[in-house]
Amino acid sequence: MTETITIKRLFSLNRDEVSRFLGCIYEHSPWVSEALLKTTDPNSINTVTELAAAMKAIVDESTTEQKMTLLCAHPDLCEKVAKMKELTKESQEEQSRAGLQSLEGDELEKFNSLNSNYRAKFNFPFILAVRNATKFTVMSALEGRLPNPPEREIAGALEQVHKIAWMRLLTKVESNDPVGFLTCHVLDTANGCPAAKMRIHLTRISPPASAGLIGEYITNIDGRLEGGPALKGKDFMVGTYEWKFFAGDYFASKGTFISGTPFLDEIPIRFGIDNPDDHYHVPLLVSPWSFSTYRGS
Amino acid sequence: MTETITIKRLFSLNRDEVSRFLGCIYEHSPWVSEALLKTTDPNSINTVTELAAAMKAIVDESTTEQKMTLLCAHPDLCEKVAKMKELTKESQEEQSRAGLQSLEGDELEKFNSLNSNYRAKFNFPFILAVRNATKFTVMSALEGRLPNPPEREIAGALEQVHKIAWMRLLTKVESNDPVGFLTCHVLDTANGCPAAKMRIHLTRISPPASAGLIGEYITNIDGRLEGGPALKGKDFMVGTYEWKFFAGDYFASKGTFISGTPFLDEIPIRFGIDNPDDHYHVPLLVSPWSFSTYRGS
Amino acid sequence: MTETITIKRLFSLNRDEVSRFLGCIYEHSPWVSEALLKTTDPNSINTVTELAAAMKAIVDESTTEQKMTLLCAHPDLCEKVAKMKELTKESQEEQSRAGLQSLEGDELEKFNSLNSNYRAKFNFPFILAVRNATKFTVMSALEGRLPNPPEREIAGALEQVHKIAWMRLLTKVESNDPVGFLTCHVLDTANGCPAAKMRIHLTRISPPASAGLIGEYITNIDGRLEGGPALKGKDFMVGTYEWKFFAGDYFASKGTFISGTPFLDEIPIRFGIDNPDDHYHVPLLVSPWSFSTYRGS
Amino acid sequence: MTETITIKRLFSLNRDEVSRFLGCIYEHSPWVSEALLKTTDPNSINTVTELAAAMKAIVDESTTEQKMTLLCAHPDLCEKVAKMKELTKESQEEQSRAGLQSLEGDELEKFNSLNSNYRAKFNFPFILAVRNATKFTVMSALEGRLPNPPEREIAGALEQVHKIAWMRLLTKVESNDPVGFLTCHVLDTANGCPAAKMRIHLTRISPPASAGLIGEYITNIDGRLEGGPALKGKDFMVGTYEWKFFAGDYFASKGTFISGTPFLDEIPIRFGIDNPDDHYHVPLLVSPWSFSTYRGS
Repeated sequence: MTETITIKRLFSLNRDEVSRFLGCIYEHSPWVSEALLKTTDPNSINTVTELAAAMKAIVDESTTEQKMTLLCAHPDLCEKVAKMKELTKESQEEQSRAGLQSLEGDELEKFNSLNSNYRAKFNFPFILAVRNATKFTVMSALEGRLPNPPEREIAGALEQVHKIAWMRLLTKVESNDPVGFLTCHVLDTANGCPAAKMRIHLTRISPPASAGLIGEYITNIDGRLEGGPALKGKDFMVGTYEWKFFAGDYFASKGTFISGTPFLDEIPIRFGIDNPDDHYHVPLLVSPWSFSTYRGS
Repeated sequence: MTETITIKRLFSLNRDEVSRFLGCIYEHSPWVSEALLKTTDPNSINTVTELAAAMKAIVDESTTEQKMTLLCAHPDLCEKVAKMKELTKESQEEQSRAGLQSLEGDELEKFNSLNSNYRAKFNFPFILAVRNATKFTVMSALEGRLPNPPEREIAGALEQVHKIAWMRLLTKVESNDPVGFLTCHVLDTANGCPAAKMRIHLTRISPPASAGLIGEYITNIDGRLEGGPALKGKDFMVGTYEWKFFAGDYFASKGTFISGTPFLDEIPIRFGIDNPDDHYHVPLLVSPWSFSTYRGS
Repeated sequence: MTETITIKRLFSLNRDEVSRFLGCIYEHSPWVSEALLKTTDPNSINTVTELAAAMKAIVDESTTEQKMTLLCAHPDLCEKVAKMKELTKESQEEQSRAGLQSLEGDELEKFNSLNSNYRAKFNFPFILAVRNATKFTVMSALEGRLPNPPEREIAGALEQVHKIAWMRLLTKVESNDPVGFLTCHVLDTANGCPAAKMRIHLTRISPPASAGLIGEYITNIDGRLEGGPALKGKDFMVGTYEWKFFAGDYFASKGTFISGTPFLDEIPIRFGIDNPDDHYHVPLLVSPWSFSTYRGS
Repeated sequence: MTETITIKRLFSLNRDEVSRFLGCIYEHSPWVSEALLKTTDPNSINTVTELAAAMKAIVDESTTEQKMTLLCAHPDLCEKVAKMKELTKESQEEQSRAGLQSLEGDELEKFNSLNSNYRAKFNFPFILAVRNATKFTVMSALEGRLPNPPEREIAGALEQVHKIAWMRLLTKVESNDPVGFLTCHVLDTANGCPAAKMRIHLTRISPPASAGLIGEYITNIDGRLEGGPALKGKDFMVGTYEWKFFAGDYFASKGTFISGTPFLDEIPIRFGIDNPDDHYHVPLLVSPWSFSTYRGS
């Protein structure tokens, strides 16, 4: 991953440099960053979230024609191989992860057919903003969205465009003072109490360069991690993570009458962190026979 | 794992052989299998579940003295190393997996102290029936159960004894016609409908000799696996399993407005199967921001 | 509620009568039903669901101009009182339930202001399709949707229009052979088994004319209602319902160690049925300290 | 309900008075309160929870004979009508609410038969600690517990005895400084965020004398109630409560595409508060198609 600069540092550059820096956030549409510089006070922006929102607002308030032009500025997935060189650098990187190159034979034919039907129906190329998308993701999204009524798909495609912008921003800038952090909580729904003294491991799955076991914890009497957030500051990076909850050991301490091979023992919970400015609360509600989790706050 | 024989085959043996075969199911207590042969019609028993229930009933109906003797017949975890040779073969195997041998220093001292406090308080040794228990499991159970009032711990310890009997039975006999099977169902709680066309993988985690990817599935229009159970017959073996649900791809097909690195993408659900005679229904309820599972039927 | 006629009976009428009958389903837009009659084989339509889908498809495939005209054909909520007479009969009925007439003073002023901001921003009136909407519902929807980007709100407003069409259809036609039904299932997540012998009551809350206790049930060994669906045929009517689960009694039978005033005792689950052609599965997952429900299938 | 006195006031009485006051907490077993006074420093006890725990510890540490005597000191449900006068005052009150008097004919016969089988099997009377138990509760508990092995039922019956003691204590004493309170939190699992601006009502269902609407709330930006706990101090009384969440209005503000009669609209969540010293956190996790709640902390 390339170096990022803080928002403060970004806006200390001269206008042309900022414009160049942000010009490629929206595909082939430098007008977005130019409008940003005209209408927005840089001092009001301190986080990537705020910068993304400001740029999104400019697109939201643009004309229908501008929006359609923006959609159409995106590369066609099918023409990818042939027209590699015309793609902006950012799009190349994202598409190379898509696993589309592995499509062959009937699959490839189906993909080409869906892709051209999509463009014929909506008059703009199919756009998908998922990091590390596989061919399954692309095919699934294409098949699922093709039957949409046009007005719904326009709205949806623009949301994909904003997501791509978000992902690009994250590779270039960072909040002046990132405040995001990760917390946990374990509730025992069989006994109606916090699950105290449960062991938990946290592992980073991706990005690969930073993958590995991050920490080992034991819940306190309130079912939370002693010592505050599991991740904050520089460690709280965009990526994929996995809790492992040692629920079997916990229920053994309760003398729960469970089977020899417990239905639930080590419980992995895999989740993604996408916003370094947010609080991610990822709890576990667990009985010996059921569990659930959710994005909390 | 050693060969098992069917219940039918077991009861075709002569009474002495059956007695020898089942004599070690309850620790040093051949009287249980002897009573079974006297009171129960072998033809009424077709499954491991029924055999276990019949043997349990004999213990349940025995006197308080017999129960205390049975509890006391179990080996003391602390004396394990020193008295290895006196253990029944089954107990040796179970305890060698317990990871207790890795206890050292303060941990070992704490364990010895808890263990002797347990025996002093309850007048029977600490008994724990969890396959592959680690030192964490044992310590957790010991610490958690020590404060119990005696009458509750007697009931709990007997349940552990029945679980050990169950685990031993499973290594020796099999149902005449095993009927257990594994099914799945995926509900999309954000859209209130079955999650159709979701990819799912099923992997066996243990026993190690049979570990590996078992199958790849795509949910049908009702959110279920086409073609019936994911596991049945010989493949439906006691062990640990993991579904992997490709939820991110599914929600991409819905055009869900999610972040670039989705909160939920590939969702692993790890679970144990302990009874080859049972139906295990292990479903997923999922939105882009939450999921839950449970042992269904 | 007025009499409905079956789809079969509807399409046995002559073309003009059908057109008149369906002409008011989409507000001031008889062209939808006229196009339906031209393009669709009446014999392919047997359910209200299919009829609604066929009419929706015609709107979906119409031009952007036609869609905007359709949106603009809807009455302005603010002009409601003054222009009552110009409303189509159906809209009058729906809006009289909205409780907007109770808005006064600051609330009324806020509503008028939001409503005109909405029209100014999007160039079509605010449309909301909720039966029995209160002033809270209307204000909540208006405040929540006003900040949307235009392309998203156009898609959303059209969905509201289709919902209104659906609600109007339901008051006029019925499926030839309605197949919807209501089922239940209770899982005990503390013990990992179906909750057998749990008492359940089912009550209809609305429509008021049919309100009252519908049935009393006891779950069977699989946690389901003996004798099949709780509702089907004529009894399976659009409206609001409530299960009452006697979970406290159930857990008392398990000897669960709960407090004197149980955290969960009688559990009401209120839900709406909106489609007489659908299967509604409304289960309960319950432990003494937690429960959940969902729209199943 | 009779006046309660604080624990501080209780222990300011002379030893005989205290003994008389607490003598009837455990049925016909004044030895419990006498032992308490001998072994426990009154200054270490400030809450009903601590007082109950101290009395329970005395029973836990008593001999098996004492425990069996305590169990046998409880009145037989069958002999209730005939021997009303011999019951302690507390038992009378509890049993009069049980609805057992309404048993007739076959039901009564079945009850009598189960009740005498229970006593014959376990050698102590059937004991049930549920406030306002109906005949269904009693029958359900009796049928469910009769098949238990004796050692499990002894443990279970003692837990019922401790619950009865707890319920009696609550009618007589109060914590010096009650710290219990009720909080709420609403998470939107369809959008992965706190549910802001959701209206909530809180109603007390029982005790009847204090029943009625308690408060109306709107969630803040974090999905919580502005201004802290919904209940604390004197208002946080043992009883049954019901939240009503206006989820339909909330999802209307999100422009959620739901049906005309939403599957979920007004969501009632009924729950009991049993401990005036505890924090009850009763949250709602909700999508347009599913919800769950649990006893949090």
